[in-house]
Amino acid sequence: MTGRVFGLGLGPGDPELITVKALGLLRRAAIVAYPAPETGASFARGIVARWLSPAQREMPIRIPMEETRFPAQAVYDRAARAIGAELDTGRDVAILCQGDPFFYGSFMYLFGRLSERYLVEIVPGVSSLGACAAAAGFPLAARNDVLVVLPAGLPDAELARRLDTCDAAAIIKLGRHFARLRALLERQDLAAAAHYVEHATLADMRIARLTEVDPAEAPYFSMILVHRRGEAWR
Amino acid sequence: MTGRVFGLGLGPGDPELITVKALGLLRRAAIVAYPAPETGASFARGIVARWLSPAQREMPIRIPMEETRFPAQAVYDRAARAIGAELDTGRDVAILCQGDPFFYGSFMYLFGRLSERYLVEIVPGVSSLGACAAAAGFPLAARNDVLVVLPAGLPDAELARRLDTCDAAAIIKLGRHFARLRALLERQDLAAAAHYVEHATLADMRIARLTEVDPAEAPYFSMILVHRRGEAWR
Repeated sequence: MTGRVFGLGLGPGDPELITVKALGLLRRAAIVAYPAPETGASFARGIVARWLSPAQREMPIRIPMEETRFPAQAVYDRAARAIGAELDTGRDVAILCQGDPFFYGSFMYLFGRLSERYLVEIVPGVSSLGACAAAAGFPLAARNDVLVVLPAGLPDAELARRLDTCDAAAIIKLGRHFARLRALLERQDLAAAAHYVEHATLADMRIARLTEVDPAEAPYFSMILVHRRGEAWR
Repeated sequence: MTGRVFGLGLGPGDPELITVKALGLLRRAAIVAYPAPETGASFARGIVARWLSPAQREMPIRIPMEETRFPAQAVYDRAARAIGAELDTGRDVAILCQGDPFFYGSFMYLFGRLSERYLVEIVPGVSSLGACAAAAGFPLAARNDVLVVLPAGLPDAELARRLDTCDAAAIIKLGRHFARLRALLERQDLAAAAHYVEHATLADMRIARLTEVDPAEAPYFSMILVHRRGEAWR
């Protein structure tokens, strides 16, 4: 019998934000695969390190970390073949996904390759969106609000147009785009009401006003939340 | 010493999709408050019923369930006063929130009333967005995709314009709006690629094509997911 794939959403980083379901499946998995940088530790693995056992076989998937529009297709091809080889022998494979697997997660590239031939079960996880909102004490959206998720790499004109026409926005993957985004929000008169969160739920989490952030220091895993009414519950 | 409020995201309905953190705080709470309809059982309470103990005091917050733009302010005023009275005696209160507390959740109305006077900690939860995407095997968004969350109650012209200009959309709170939304997606040539999910992660979950849904039967807790490239990972 062919093995199954479990795509496990682990949440944003605090190990306790894993779900009971993902934790149970993780503990029962003979093989645990996870994305990792070309050198160094995997963020996803770090979230669940306390629950891994030496009896489990680990399969790091080393992925080049450039912020390119097109991900490392050849890496995912190879990883899908290696995972497929395990599934063909009847072993289940748990694939670790930080955040929610289907919210801007690289897991979807493995899912796209594996789901045509194998049974893939996805366990949704707490996304960075909910985690940043909770950390900032800032509700995202209510009632008939239109909520837009905007990757910071989009062009200024497009970001401005979308910020002009939504109720609430989450600007994600800030990193080197922070200074440009802050200037844009200032021009739109949205900077004062914006909430900035980096490394949500981790030990080095930081919540700040935009003016307090050094643009050279904004990490990729940071987010700006803004609501045109100021606060969603008004 | 004043008590603290914990706003606990419970996830979309499968009890195992609660986080380890929310479960721990739930079990330690002396008082557990939750939204409930005017008569009948609370959905949020039902998610965690197996973990409640008779030693815990329960505070149902009975809320009129009409889909009005303005929620029952007087009900939240009263509930906030009742919760505040417990906090003033030094007791902690856990407030149960289905899904994620800050993603279109009614918890924010209590949060708005309580957070100025009391310490409120929010535990984010798995949102219906991630749960529906996982259930449908349909990644929401990737790379520089713009993802829009659209409440189905918005006017047709606005929905059409927003669907025309996003990469990915989640149309939420369908209920009685289903027939109108299906017709609109057909006009936009998006119906065939759309994924419909109702009661995600519950025993009566249903995943269907739009043509298979009886508009009279679509519940409020249902969602349509669509991506203009067909699939986010392409």
